[in-house]
Amino acid sequence: MTELYHLTGTQARDRIRDGKVTVEEYARSLLTRIQERDPLIHAWAYLNPERVIQQAKALDQISPENRGPLHGIAIGIKDVVLTKDMPTGYNSAIYKDAPSANVDAAAVLTLRAAGALIVGKTATTEFAASSEGGPCTNPHSPEHTPGGSSSGSGAAVADFQIPIALGTQTGGSMIRPGSFNAVYAFKPTWNAISRDGVSHFSVTCDTVGFFTRSVADLDLLASVFDLADDIPIPRSPFAVDKAKIAVAKTHVWPKAGPGLQAAWERAQALLVSHGAEVEEIELPENFSKLKEWHETILAGEGRASFRGNYLLSKDKLAPRVVGYVENKPSVSRRSLLDSYDGCAQLRPLWDNIVRQYDAVIVPSTVDEAPLGLAYTGDSSFCSMWTLLHAPCLNVPGFVGEKGLPLGLTIVGARYHDVHVLRAGKEIGAIFSSEGGFVSQIQ
Amino acid sequence: MTELYHLTGTQARDRIRDGKVTVEEYARSLLTRIQERDPLIHAWAYLNPERVIQQAKALDQISPENRGPLHGIAIGIKDVVLTKDMPTGYNSAIYKDAPSANVDAAAVLTLRAAGALIVGKTATTEFAASSEGGPCTNPHSPEHTPGGSSSGSGAAVADFQIPIALGTQTGGSMIRPGSFNAVYAFKPTWNAISRDGVSHFSVTCDTVGFFTRSVADLDLLASVFDLADDIPIPRSPFAVDKAKIAVAKTHVWPKAGPGLQAAWERAQALLVSHGAEVEEIELPENFSKLKEWHETILAGEGRASFRGNYLLSKDKLAPRVVGYVENKPSVSRRSLLDSYDGCAQLRPLWDNIVRQYDAVIVPSTVDEAPLGLAYTGDSSFCSMWTLLHAPCLNVPGFVGEKGLPLGLTIVGARYHDVHVLRAGKEIGAIFSSEGGFVSQIQ
Repeated sequence: MTELYHLTGTQARDRIRDGKVTVEEYARSLLTRIQERDPLIHAWAYLNPERVIQQAKALDQISPENRGPLHGIAIGIKDVVLTKDMPTGYNSAIYKDAPSANVDAAAVLTLRAAGALIVGKTATTEFAASSEGGPCTNPHSPEHTPGGSSSGSGAAVADFQIPIALGTQTGGSMIRPGSFNAVYAFKPTWNAISRDGVSHFSVTCDTVGFFTRSVADLDLLASVFDLADDIPIPRSPFAVDKAKIAVAKTHVWPKAGPGLQAAWERAQALLVSHGAEVEEIELPENFSKLKEWHETILAGEGRASFRGNYLLSKDKLAPRVVGYVENKPSVSRRSLLDSYDGCAQLRPLWDNIVRQYDAVIVPSTVDEAPLGLAYTGDSSFCSMWTLLHAPCLNVPGFVGEKGLPLGLTIVGARYHDVHVLRAGKEIGAIFSSEGGFVSQIQ
Repeated sequence: MTELYHLTGTQARDRIRDGKVTVEEYARSLLTRIQERDPLIHAWAYLNPERVIQQAKALDQISPENRGPLHGIAIGIKDVVLTKDMPTGYNSAIYKDAPSANVDAAAVLTLRAAGALIVGKTATTEFAASSEGGPCTNPHSPEHTPGGSSSGSGAAVADFQIPIALGTQTGGSMIRPGSFNAVYAFKPTWNAISRDGVSHFSVTCDTVGFFTRSVADLDLLASVFDLADDIPIPRSPFAVDKAKIAVAKTHVWPKAGPGLQAAWERAQALLVSHGAEVEEIELPENFSKLKEWHETILAGEGRASFRGNYLLSKDKLAPRVVGYVENKPSVSRRSLLDSYDGCAQLRPLWDNIVRQYDAVIVPSTVDEAPLGLAYTGDSSFCSMWTLLHAPCLNVPGFVGEKGLPLGLTIVGARYHDVHVLRAGKEIGAIFSSEGGFVSQIQ
């Protein structure tokens, strides 16, 4: 039976708009789901059910002509993003009992102005800068990590606790939880969504995006955030039949586990069987430097980002964060600048490569989620695209040897966000129904 | 007679350290000065004298061995930067009566951890994104603008209300008030100081820096913020005698007014008379594109930055801010990317040019401050360096036809911050004593 909590964001919006359900009824269904499941999943860093109901009632009071495009859609916010009515904890001992910041991050302002119901704050790793996980679990198998750092955002959406969650990515903090939880994870072009009010780690890489269970929900968000392409795209509308699709294993491929290898073969076979022309491409040799540049930039920028908290309470910070401030990775300013300049040269190069195809597909993660909660997983397949500022969409559908999900990524040229979503809608329909993964979450 | 409020930050620190004055006594002197002068200068957006005294008393209670390097130094914070114990207004009608954010921006955390006395919030233009001034006035002549957007930070330091103020620059928002108020204004390398908790306008250009009345104060801040160069610099220690100094009029020179033209000649004559070898250099032709790229990037990034506030309260925003969100400047994403990629190519080029000299001097402003408070002045001479991420120091000392001050800028290669300060100390000593400007502020 379909419960209200099973609805995607756009489905819930439609029901509310058509008067079939109130925002309050919808919210109560989600809260019941959360109450049942969160003791197992631990997706929430902060959630006040009473405040959610208050907000829902207030939304129900708004007259139909004054309702926004997200009216009543329930959204979770990663706990590194400021919210005026909820504390922000950053999963840091320093901010454990901090009061609310009384101010909304720019992205939260936008969501609220569009009528969203802000449910609570979702679990993150410390300052979204650590790969140390827990207690949030993977709803497909709670002994496995949900990925990170946007752990709670990915898990809560996969687990039908909310239809949409805001996340951030600096390395692979959205695409990885997207892959491990079998949901769509969309990291738009760098800075296409304002990061004002979002904790800084690496200004060059930090990006705000969303988790959903449908591409239609992402289309809606893209419209609310004004993510329009005004750059000619190869072909429109997108259809898999006769599409020219590139697949790029990248220089990270030697890390590919059996789950990824199988998904990779299956994806290509599916695309070909649906009429696509699939071409395997190799990235130019200097793209292999992106991983090292990414590490250098995170270390160099993290050094400045965490200095204040370090001076305030060094003893309460994770070793990795302390290491950034103390420059344990021994990153010189010279190498930081070389990394900036190196990747800046590759960005337009990448745009030119990807524009030759209707879509480009790359791996999301080395495999399905690893066992255990201590480590949120490898982000090697994601970080290069984050640094190139390219829009990325994790498309779920495949399955690893343990029966856990994994996805693949559609990656675009900068500001080809809408095109990536169009391709994701068609490709996602195929991968989801024929990729092999069947969710047991009910 | 020298009053306590006349002291620079390092001088005040020394007196406090030596037990000659308490932080409370020092704070009371500044508060008296502010009380006398602020009805004319309007440098403060928020100041609570009782809280300042409370903080000062708390600092006095700290045992000498636990005192930080900035112990007791009074610092003002531009009102676009979050402070845990003071509201942040952004000079926006939306945030007019907003409560405190309960959280400190990363730079404020650092200042507080080092023992600074945070005095209050200094006047800014709306979201530091408008050149619409008022009510803050120029302490050298209150009918004239103090410049913007860091208006209050520049004016309060010039007026001996505080020795140090934090500011931000996206175009010329620090260098211009530095020039118009005859104080040092230091815009470090982009992102050398974290902008976490600082209102976003253009992520590519926004930079945090400081206003002071001495280079020694900037040296101290550079140490607190870990602004160390690890790139070989031409010559060390810096001495004007036999220094190879480049002067660059830049492509903006046709805008130079009589005050700047006279300062330009006088500066070169002074440097030569002190033994420097001065060489006039021309910037490569493609540097002339920086101004247009800067405008494109501000428009393109401002579009995303202000979307949340626009959706919340469009009617309360300045027309320029509304224009960014509605894309009135008609900036395409294509042109935004071209601007990103264009200036990224010039950054290492600039670094290579400037490294051939011991110092490079460029204009700060087109002339002394214009009459009136409505317009904070032209930032054309500053924006190119902001976009190139180059450290800039306004060095005061010169005088325009109306008798108001103007300065010149020492500009460095990225992460040559300490070198710029070293050069600024020696060059500043000459310009200040022989440049021709004599302050009437007592």
